[in-house]
Amino acid sequence: MMNDKQYRESLRRLKPVIYCNGRRIENVVDDPMTKPHVNAAALTYKLAFDPECEDLMTVESSLTGQKINRFTHIHQSTDDLINKVKMLRMIGQRTGTCFQRCVGLDALNSTFIVTHKVDRECGTDYHQRFLAYLKFVQENDLMVAGSMTDPKGDRSKKPGQQADPDLYVRVVERRRDGIVVRGAKCHQTGMVNSHHMLILPTTNLGPDDKDYAVACAIPVDAPGVIHIFGRQTNDGRRLDGDIDTGNAEYAIVGGETLTVLDDVFVPWKHVFMCGEYKYAQEYVETFASYHRQNYGGCKVGVADVLIGATAQMAEYNGVAAASHIKDKIIEMIHLAETMYNCSIACSAEGHLTEAGNWYVDALLANTVKLNCTRFMYEIARLAHDIAGGFIATLPYEADYRSPVTGPYIEKYFTADPKVPTEHRIRLARLIENMTGGTALAESMHGAGSPQAMRVMLYRETNLEHKKRLARRLAKIEL
Amino acid sequence: MMNDKQYRESLRRLKPVIYCNGRRIENVVDDPMTKPHVNAAALTYKLAFDPECEDLMTVESSLTGQKINRFTHIHQSTDDLINKVKMLRMIGQRTGTCFQRCVGLDALNSTFIVTHKVDRECGTDYHQRFLAYLKFVQENDLMVAGSMTDPKGDRSKKPGQQADPDLYVRVVERRRDGIVVRGAKCHQTGMVNSHHMLILPTTNLGPDDKDYAVACAIPVDAPGVIHIFGRQTNDGRRLDGDIDTGNAEYAIVGGETLTVLDDVFVPWKHVFMCGEYKYAQEYVETFASYHRQNYGGCKVGVADVLIGATAQMAEYNGVAAASHIKDKIIEMIHLAETMYNCSIACSAEGHLTEAGNWYVDALLANTVKLNCTRFMYEIARLAHDIAGGFIATLPYEADYRSPVTGPYIEKYFTADPKVPTEHRIRLARLIENMTGGTALAESMHGAGSPQAMRVMLYRETNLEHKKRLARRLAKIEL
Amino acid sequence: MMNDKQYRESLRRLKPVIYCNGRRIENVVDDPMTKPHVNAAALTYKLAFDPECEDLMTVESSLTGQKINRFTHIHQSTDDLINKVKMLRMIGQRTGTCFQRCVGLDALNSTFIVTHKVDRECGTDYHQRFLAYLKFVQENDLMVAGSMTDPKGDRSKKPGQQADPDLYVRVVERRRDGIVVRGAKCHQTGMVNSHHMLILPTTNLGPDDKDYAVACAIPVDAPGVIHIFGRQTNDGRRLDGDIDTGNAEYAIVGGETLTVLDDVFVPWKHVFMCGEYKYAQEYVETFASYHRQNYGGCKVGVADVLIGATAQMAEYNGVAAASHIKDKIIEMIHLAETMYNCSIACSAEGHLTEAGNWYVDALLANTVKLNCTRFMYEIARLAHDIAGGFIATLPYEADYRSPVTGPYIEKYFTADPKVPTEHRIRLARLIENMTGGTALAESMHGAGSPQAMRVMLYRETNLEHKKRLARRLAKIEL
Amino acid sequence: MMNDKQYRESLRRLKPVIYCNGRRIENVVDDPMTKPHVNAAALTYKLAFDPECEDLMTVESSLTGQKINRFTHIHQSTDDLINKVKMLRMIGQRTGTCFQRCVGLDALNSTFIVTHKVDRECGTDYHQRFLAYLKFVQENDLMVAGSMTDPKGDRSKKPGQQADPDLYVRVVERRRDGIVVRGAKCHQTGMVNSHHMLILPTTNLGPDDKDYAVACAIPVDAPGVIHIFGRQTNDGRRLDGDIDTGNAEYAIVGGETLTVLDDVFVPWKHVFMCGEYKYAQEYVETFASYHRQNYGGCKVGVADVLIGATAQMAEYNGVAAASHIKDKIIEMIHLAETMYNCSIACSAEGHLTEAGNWYVDALLANTVKLNCTRFMYEIARLAHDIAGGFIATLPYEADYRSPVTGPYIEKYFTADPKVPTEHRIRLARLIENMTGGTALAESMHGAGSPQAMRVMLYRETNLEHKKRLARRLAKIEL
Repeated sequence: MMNDKQYRESLRRLKPVIYCNGRRIENVVDDPMTKPHVNAAALTYKLAFDPECEDLMTVESSLTGQKINRFTHIHQSTDDLINKVKMLRMIGQRTGTCFQRCVGLDALNSTFIVTHKVDRECGTDYHQRFLAYLKFVQENDLMVAGSMTDPKGDRSKKPGQQADPDLYVRVVERRRDGIVVRGAKCHQTGMVNSHHMLILPTTNLGPDDKDYAVACAIPVDAPGVIHIFGRQTNDGRRLDGDIDTGNAEYAIVGGETLTVLDDVFVPWKHVFMCGEYKYAQEYVETFASYHRQNYGGCKVGVADVLIGATAQMAEYNGVAAASHIKDKIIEMIHLAETMYNCSIACSAEGHLTEAGNWYVDALLANTVKLNCTRFMYEIARLAHDIAGGFIATLPYEADYRSPVTGPYIEKYFTADPKVPTEHRIRLARLIENMTGGTALAESMHGAGSPQAMRVMLYRETNLEHKKRLARRLAKIEL
Repeated sequence: MMNDKQYRESLRRLKPVIYCNGRRIENVVDDPMTKPHVNAAALTYKLAFDPECEDLMTVESSLTGQKINRFTHIHQSTDDLINKVKMLRMIGQRTGTCFQRCVGLDALNSTFIVTHKVDRECGTDYHQRFLAYLKFVQENDLMVAGSMTDPKGDRSKKPGQQADPDLYVRVVERRRDGIVVRGAKCHQTGMVNSHHMLILPTTNLGPDDKDYAVACAIPVDAPGVIHIFGRQTNDGRRLDGDIDTGNAEYAIVGGETLTVLDDVFVPWKHVFMCGEYKYAQEYVETFASYHRQNYGGCKVGVADVLIGATAQMAEYNGVAAASHIKDKIIEMIHLAETMYNCSIACSAEGHLTEAGNWYVDALLANTVKLNCTRFMYEIARLAHDIAGGFIATLPYEADYRSPVTGPYIEKYFTADPKVPTEHRIRLARLIENMTGGTALAESMHGAGSPQAMRVMLYRETNLEHKKRLARRLAKIEL
Repeated sequence: MMNDKQYRESLRRLKPVIYCNGRRIENVVDDPMTKPHVNAAALTYKLAFDPECEDLMTVESSLTGQKINRFTHIHQSTDDLINKVKMLRMIGQRTGTCFQRCVGLDALNSTFIVTHKVDRECGTDYHQRFLAYLKFVQENDLMVAGSMTDPKGDRSKKPGQQADPDLYVRVVERRRDGIVVRGAKCHQTGMVNSHHMLILPTTNLGPDDKDYAVACAIPVDAPGVIHIFGRQTNDGRRLDGDIDTGNAEYAIVGGETLTVLDDVFVPWKHVFMCGEYKYAQEYVETFASYHRQNYGGCKVGVADVLIGATAQMAEYNGVAAASHIKDKIIEMIHLAETMYNCSIACSAEGHLTEAGNWYVDALLANTVKLNCTRFMYEIARLAHDIAGGFIATLPYEADYRSPVTGPYIEKYFTADPKVPTEHRIRLARLIENMTGGTALAESMHGAGSPQAMRVMLYRETNLEHKKRLARRLAKIEL
Repeated sequence: MMNDKQYRESLRRLKPVIYCNGRRIENVVDDPMTKPHVNAAALTYKLAFDPECEDLMTVESSLTGQKINRFTHIHQSTDDLINKVKMLRMIGQRTGTCFQRCVGLDALNSTFIVTHKVDRECGTDYHQRFLAYLKFVQENDLMVAGSMTDPKGDRSKKPGQQADPDLYVRVVERRRDGIVVRGAKCHQTGMVNSHHMLILPTTNLGPDDKDYAVACAIPVDAPGVIHIFGRQTNDGRRLDGDIDTGNAEYAIVGGETLTVLDDVFVPWKHVFMCGEYKYAQEYVETFASYHRQNYGGCKVGVADVLIGATAQMAEYNGVAAASHIKDKIIEMIHLAETMYNCSIACSAEGHLTEAGNWYVDALLANTVKLNCTRFMYEIARLAHDIAGGFIATLPYEADYRSPVTGPYIEKYFTADPKVPTEHRIRLARLIENMTGGTALAESMHGAGSPQAMRVMLYRETNLEHKKRLARRLAKIEL
């Protein structure tokens, strides 16, 4: 296992091509735009050595028997599934934002399942290849970016029907030593500070889409890989000091990129699906269900911070005892714990797969994320309500630091005289930045859009059984 | 263990005093007003002998090692807690309504905990007495009505401050051989078809309320006990045939009573608390949390029936494929499974008590019921939306059976000609009766009113910890 | 104008064929099942002579210049539209339920518009015929049941495609002196205590549906007309005294019927559409928009009663000062007034039609009813929350009146000793019956189901204009 | 009246002291941080000369009979109140954001009412002074910033009880020629591009708070006035081009400031209240109700833009025909029009005051804003849902313009090949910036926080009347 220092050093050794705001980022560890995201991911390494957290953070590898970071683990029980959720909540409480590494974990576990099934049904040997890769990941404690979402072009058309065939990642060449892939992946969380990306398909595919049925691992700095760093809400504030950015240490969401694969070569040992289009849908759903499981962990950790910030602000403002304030805080707690319940339950109701790992209850896992697309917005709305309008009109840090305007700000933003004004401002900025645009949009679209969950809820429920129950009680059928 | 036939016979041997609509009910098994409630409770006995269900329904007694009905069991693991939820959902799917017996189960488990604690701290011997009683309940497979809710009088006053001291059950005499209690318990689910009631306090108590700190077991036909049967929505329809009442077999909710204790004698062996007022609050909260756990089981079973009925009606009406109909059914499923998740999670996160049984996570258990007070109404609303206005305007069964009007009804209430009109009417009546007044009010107030859950959510959460998390990220404290 | 006494006498002179629960109702004025609905409708006559109300209740006829009851008026201004809403709220506050007569008012105004247009475009003379009929209605102060909703059969098929051609009302014979119609109308509010019904189409029609394009007036006791009275929630309680039924004077909703037209002859002077299928959709939408306008009037009047009942109960229970109680009552008020706003606004934004009357803003009118399908349920839910569980478990009136059980009920249902227990029970029964099944379902489906409003909202809004606004600001088009 | 050009020139002639991000803003018309806010306000001048809009924008002065801009008008009828709402919606549709000038309009109308009342009851002559000032404002077409919100300090304490007496604006000196005021006003919308500010109290006051009962007009560049410009979401993007900022022309919300009054002298002719503390509450409520009326105008105009942007994006993405997309757009429309209804209704139900202007229905006006604090968030949430995750992860404009990364972005962000990629990006940036932090927080706290509306709803409703209605129907009192 690596610790956070070793993780940072390992990143320094990589040379990914990253563009941001018209310039190249040479060093993700120190560049102010990427540094907080590195900090968040680094915590997944650091806490593995923290005696308080290591029970959740580390686990014995099912492949090697060695102690590994849980983020590289293949789940061996419902306890593993539950502990994943608890680990995510615990880290979320410390970062107040996305720490990115779960995407790879979910990609690993779903690839474990699908390669096993493809091999069994098609006589291929992807699973063995994958196990070798997995062992490498575990032993080197790699951070792997699970890479699913393609640009998709015209949403009413399948991959093979797009005007531009590259709008979904595809195999453009099959060689003796490997394959060449072209296309791009969007919304790539944690990509710039990962070691590898694990490409997988993003939608169900038909016989015409064979070239799009591709799964493979690629180093983030492989030739032909270009990362374009996404712009986040208030990103520029990172350059202006440490107050206005709110969560200066860990920032917001996961530093998403558009990652372009401009004819990238992948050796066969890192190819885990190549043409088996029939399994794309199951691959997508398996990954998605694992990934939706997470949101009642990490987001609830984030919500814990926001609830705490809001309760603290109420105290600073002298209104903590007002019944309507308490009632709103209770509502925030209720919504957060309801999301947590969904994640715990889909884990407790998980089952052993034929491949030998444990998989969440897919019906229940889809409720997790669907609730998240509503409740995180409502929690943000309640935070705004309690925190007050000044989260939207506070002066700049530079004006606060200025000898001309600073004293006025100090004087007029004092609430309780015992609380330093800076504390109140810092807290307001934290709330502002945790409830702004990018953070909310992530709650909506991360791990798939609401309609994707609804489709799965309809498919996974047994509606015929429910109809029979009703008919029996109505004495239509006995 | 008793089967359903033995259960009914056992009820025939009891002679409780029950009034309903100005007359006495002599025989709860056959009286049309109580029969469906007996049917629902009887299923908890019958299914224990059903090979399909016995895994959930029966369990090995921790006291005697004998196979017992789970409804008399002291929980020995988180699996027991989870299986309780699954059992409740399974039975709810078959009855479409309350089957009443969980209240006693929860009273037994909370009494188990509290008597143990009182003995340890006060040197009493309630726990041993209770174990003897529990063994008797298990061996005779008794149905026990957990009896908590007092009439409460003026809600702004404590028990001892009421104008009438009897508005909470209290000890009016302490004798060498036992105690005499007076008062009443309201909303007593399943009372008329139980064997015993287990009285427990309903609120936290102070030193002036000592006489109100009483817990004890009383046969439902003990001298001085009078039951007044409550009036439910559409109750009179039970006398008019089997269509209009909707769920003719099992009716609605649990046949609640006002049960008056008119100076009832209780021997010491059945007294489990007498004066230890300090433990009343914990008793109430423990019972309430166990009981709130249930609602994501039984109510979700009921919701399954309602979802099935609604989906079936959409099919009968020829609109099952309409996207807005599917969307609403998905929403019903989502809400139901979210409630289920809450119950599973509070069980999976349960813990071992000092008394030696397993207790739910109280914070999470309170989210279960709070969600229920919203989601069951929304599920009913969506059922109304899809089912159509005729659930509110359908003709009487007598008019349907009449040779004069019957043919018109047959003709004009046909939708899909392949579906018998009677089926459509039966289904509409099922939906109507499952979404009416009493059924909804039970989702609101059963196991406590929403405000009771909110108070517990606030108390059970660690708000100070959350504030610290926020301060740390805002760099207010490092 | 008639007063309420004259109205009742006029009903006694009619001889409609009405079946209810297997028997014929001979006299709607005195029969306990129909009497409260007559009472509600009679108030629309009585208040026209009440000095406090006559400003809202009466108006000068645009046809005759005579003072008429507003329920027979053709709207002459936005003030007329607004006063309609205020009149409905005022009566709703006095009845606590539907008083039925608005359906005819809306049918008259929409027929006024559509006959004018058909004549102009098709050279027919329906409008003159209709004006003659309208004059007769105004002069005789008739109550007219607007009759729109057909049984509809298989909802996925048009009228002409149904297996049974009678599932929508149609012309089966055209004679020199008139037409013969066959079919049925469902959910006919106020039908049994109206004088006439005004038949209109229920859906848009195509060239194959010509026979279904029929509008005409028919006396409720015309030969061939059979009324089958619908069964409502708790209807039987009307026979048991005056407590349990809640609102003994006016009951619940509007006494809906299935009204069968078994080859009913209609003279030409009462035929207002016959074959002009192209105008069916506009007819439906015009009627529907007028009718949806109402719900922020009458239902808000009903909500006012329910809010008052709930606030009163909180006071009886000693919890009126609790902040969470006040907060819920505020929420009920907010929801009610929001519905009211929608009705006032769609009236204030009304416009003059080519026919010469005033029509509501159709976009805004559809928001009224869509809000109602949500807010009335939420208001009911909040009423349940505050009122407490005993609305679902109260004893029967007979037990309260009994010397055996009455004293127990008196004793144990006392809250504040200064408030008679009977008052508390009466109030609980009022709340129970106002929030039960039929009442809620009416809020959902009266004036059309939610999807009907959504379709109209989409059609009535100018989405292209909104897109242009966005493109201009995004500098996509300047 | 001034046109937009004259307005800009008039601003250039002022010399306010404004700080922003550590520097002084010398020229609000051209400074990139303030320019878009000036643009938005300038539209209120420009449209007064636009033949399409002048009917809404201009009106005859009740003081002078001259044609004036409606933003300086004293309302003379319910039509004036309704036209105010329509004007606000119309401008909001063109700016997609706040145009700031309504605050002054509301301050003028409430000062008109309160000065009249104070004079009548206290024998003062504020009203005449105010009329003279008002005439000056109308004739010079001034933009007046209504200045209400004080910093408030510890919210649990009254003004006079604060540790620092300056946390509410107060009179520190009364001189023969005028008064000297000290304190600050927060969240001052449009302040930096106004000509004057009109100070009014922010809360009800007691006898000890006499010095805080002050209303007066002050030029924005008066000696002692210092403006500190607030930091908004994504404000820095204004410096980076015109794509990422979304609405480059008009920006977000109203450019709020903290405006410090550092011992500012005000001549008596501009003092409209000085010590009459009893009238502070009515002043606050009158201003607040007028101001809450607006939100169903301007915010609905803004929502129209957002709905259009979302519908346009759905079209660009090829999903406009999907039923779930249409359904969500319908929901957005429904919510927007419901808010509009509330504003229209509180205007149509307005009444003539004793002072001689027209005032909104205060009960209904408070529902407007309370709905806004919920619906604007839900509209934003639905916009996120439909627009897709890329609103949160799009690359920087600089990367799009770069020859290295631009082609990749062009290629991979194409959806429908017929739609330029830049259009899609521009639209996404518009949606992102309209739904981010500052914009939402303004919907929550502008014109007061939700609890302020709830308190007024409770006070303005006639709960006793509602209780009587209920008691009468329950036959508790006849």
